[in-house]
Amino acid sequence: MIASATPADGDGIINVTSNIEVFSPEENECVAELWNEFILKGSRESGYSFLVARESGRVAGFACYGPRALTSGTFDLYWIAVDPRARRKGLGKELLASVEAGVINDGGRLVIVETSGQEKYDQTRAFYIAAGYTLEATVKDFYQQEDDLVIFTKHV
Amino acid sequence: MIASATPADGDGIINVTSNIEVFSPEENECVAELWNEFILKGSRESGYSFLVARESGRVAGFACYGPRALTSGTFDLYWIAVDPRARRKGLGKELLASVEAGVINDGGRLVIVETSGQEKYDQTRAFYIAAGYTLEATVKDFYQQEDDLVIFTKHV
Repeated sequence: MIASATPADGDGIINVTSNIEVFSPEENECVAELWNEFILKGSRESGYSFLVARESGRVAGFACYGPRALTSGTFDLYWIAVDPRARRKGLGKELLASVEAGVINDGGRLVIVETSGQEKYDQTRAFYIAAGYTLEATVKDFYQQEDDLVIFTKHV
Repeated sequence: MIASATPADGDGIINVTSNIEVFSPEENECVAELWNEFILKGSRESGYSFLVARESGRVAGFACYGPRALTSGTFDLYWIAVDPRARRKGLGKELLASVEAGVINDGGRLVIVETSGQEKYDQTRAFYIAAGYTLEATVKDFYQQEDDLVIFTKHV
């Protein structure tokens, strides 16, 4: 079941991020920062909306998205993650569909996903392609030398 | 003369932005927000560095840049602007060169510039091309329908 996150979901979200193999400590810290902004200021003022996938009351996955400043109707999907123990059940797909529904509900028209071109993100990129996203642009050596930024988009 | 901005430059910077024809009220507001963060927290904690070009003690132009989160050595040039009354003297070029020197000084290797693909930004894009930037990627309909994001990069 996908739902808007409540303050009680914070520990569960942080717990999921710490279980994601490909997330670096800096990335975990970034999720925590966005969560803290969201809790402190709320969705509208922080610009971050969090959704959670719950299984037996436990947070099994989450997504964070929000409007991109200075655009009209463009939203960033900042994070989407499913606990490795809860995979292959379609939770990622459900979370992504809920993000898109949320974007439409907020008057959005375009979803942007930024990810890495590295081999360890092959599955991540395949996930977005399968969900109807287009590989729209690449910025070489963005994250570091030999680690490109890959930008996916979907008109919703 | 290009120098690091001091708190006294705030009014001059806001004044320059309000004189830029292509800046929208939202963009002026965004410059003010970054400036306030910089004044409140300082360059390191805010992530924003401001440079100013002064003429007879007056702020004639400015630039704002900073490290991109989750990257190693990639910096965003957030804003660069020269007062229309102070143009054709090379201040923009001087500001850009100083940004690049600042990025190198901070251990950076790649500068990213995001701008619009609209016709009214033709001169802006020509400015970056002339300064050795590469048009690296385009995201269609990013700012709004028919208004693309154009990403320039330069290895410094």
